[in-house]
Amino acid sequence: MELDKYFDEIIKNVNEEIEKYIKGEPKELYDASIYLLKAGGKRLRPLITVASSDLFSGDRKRAYKAAAAVEILHNFTLIHDDIMDEDTLRRGMPTVHVKWGIPMAILAGDLLHAKAFEVLSEALEGLDSRRFYMGLSEFSKSVIIIAEGQAMDMEFENRQDVTEEEYLEMIKKKTAQLFSCSAFLGGLVSNAEDKDLELLKQFGLNLGIAFQIIDDILGLTADEKELGKPVYSDIREGKKTILVIKALSLASETERKIIIEGLGSKDQEKIVRAAEVVKSLSLNYAYEVAEEYYQKSMKALSAIGGNDIAGKALKYLAEFTIKRRK
Amino acid sequence: MELDKYFDEIIKNVNEEIEKYIKGEPKELYDASIYLLKAGGKRLRPLITVASSDLFSGDRKRAYKAAAAVEILHNFTLIHDDIMDEDTLRRGMPTVHVKWGIPMAILAGDLLHAKAFEVLSEALEGLDSRRFYMGLSEFSKSVIIIAEGQAMDMEFENRQDVTEEEYLEMIKKKTAQLFSCSAFLGGLVSNAEDKDLELLKQFGLNLGIAFQIIDDILGLTADEKELGKPVYSDIREGKKTILVIKALSLASETERKIIIEGLGSKDQEKIVRAAEVVKSLSLNYAYEVAEEYYQKSMKALSAIGGNDIAGKALKYLAEFTIKRRK
Repeated sequence: MELDKYFDEIIKNVNEEIEKYIKGEPKELYDASIYLLKAGGKRLRPLITVASSDLFSGDRKRAYKAAAAVEILHNFTLIHDDIMDEDTLRRGMPTVHVKWGIPMAILAGDLLHAKAFEVLSEALEGLDSRRFYMGLSEFSKSVIIIAEGQAMDMEFENRQDVTEEEYLEMIKKKTAQLFSCSAFLGGLVSNAEDKDLELLKQFGLNLGIAFQIIDDILGLTADEKELGKPVYSDIREGKKTILVIKALSLASETERKIIIEGLGSKDQEKIVRAAEVVKSLSLNYAYEVAEEYYQKSMKALSAIGGNDIAGKALKYLAEFTIKRRK
Repeated sequence: MELDKYFDEIIKNVNEEIEKYIKGEPKELYDASIYLLKAGGKRLRPLITVASSDLFSGDRKRAYKAAAAVEILHNFTLIHDDIMDEDTLRRGMPTVHVKWGIPMAILAGDLLHAKAFEVLSEALEGLDSRRFYMGLSEFSKSVIIIAEGQAMDMEFENRQDVTEEEYLEMIKKKTAQLFSCSAFLGGLVSNAEDKDLELLKQFGLNLGIAFQIIDDILGLTADEKELGKPVYSDIREGKKTILVIKALSLASETERKIIIEGLGSKDQEKIVRAAEVVKSLSLNYAYEVAEEYYQKSMKALSAIGGNDIAGKALKYLAEFTIKRRK
């Protein structure tokens, strides 16, 4: 209850920042750019940023801006990923390139990418030069790492021999790095000490890994309404999730054939059969690995200490990440 | 002769910075990202940045990094523009999306976009906090403005009533803003005073406008080998250049019909006829307008003063911009 209010207040303010910055001419470009941001989303990353700032009782105005920068950046990557993956649904709505065409969707993503840095500059304004540099450096390096992760994800689609280690490396880059950066930036704008910034990064990184594993699980277990996108799209796109990798390593000859036939297939029956086999072989394992990274994130968090409600909030967000059903 | 050496030294060092930063894994992503940067290009913007820094005898190491950031950013916009405009040739080579496909070209552009901010952070490291903010703010706002300009350019393709004023607004955003930012950043990293930074922006902005008008002229007058891309592609894509706008305003009924028929056409004969009519009506006028903005840029430059050879270099670059044949 107390936490509900805490989260609502943050989301309201971060949304205000987002709407303040993503506004302008030409209208079509800004419409295409704000569309996904207004289509919902859990705002998990901004909540992590602001709560991480609150741990050190930082300036909320700065924290809201840093959080908005992170969320805007995240939405830029979603818009471009949806073009690359040819996804047509996101958050239960047609994707940006479906509504506006690929050229405008590329441009809307580019605009949000640049806007994220603009809002970051406002979040960091007036910090000492060293911290300003740390913030810009970490943020830009994060985007680079995310792009590298996306390239790995795409490359994996054409390979059947992806290892769990490679998968973990890929999701660290594609997903977990931004969680790490979200927590880091919250601490940075609150003048947290370097050792606490390091712990915040560890908290975010491990939580982000757990988040992505759960996301991959939900892609096989949730229904379309919960997901806001078609079920089994990972199988259809030939994605090498931890579930697929583990299932392939355990599969009998027959099972292996079914999985391979479903991966990247356009035949819905083959996709469903592959998904069922994958689930039967690796669902429990995937939950175990997610739990392991969740525990690591909790360990980093408990080493930080800091403000009470913010600590509770981060713990709650981490638990939510693991237990969520969408 | 003296200037040749001056320019060569800058280009060599900026290229080294670029190659230092655009390197990594996955290989395919980095190959696609560095490709256009290595395909040539006049390096006009980096030369402006470093010469602008030299005006105030700034630290060359910083200036090279700022210049590399600008050039990397420029190449990101070219890669994405080529996807949006469906261009297949650039600098005499197949465009990135032709060689690697659209998904990888989107990602390569995104990587360069983020890399530009990473290199910028290194250029600004250690400057006082106010200047750090000014640099990041101007750079991110420039990218936003460039995206707005690209959206205008795309929107204009579907309109026959674009005014010269709208065209000038569009090229200010799409092209001239980055020239302005290039000059500004050079001064910024050299601790130039605010009034000189303002003059540098004016110099760059007006030069950028002249540059784009000349570019539009060359699109109708140069041959494919000089251009490194197909002739008359602006007509084929229905672009509303100053030449087309002026020609439409002066055209007889018959001429108007020929121009409209060629704009956005796939019929090479119609394109050539339209191009000939446009040239006959507006070539001289376009040169006059370019000359006007060139003079404005010279006026701003001469108000700055500063180091002798750097001033000569900037003057030379501006003259080159106006007189170039490719």
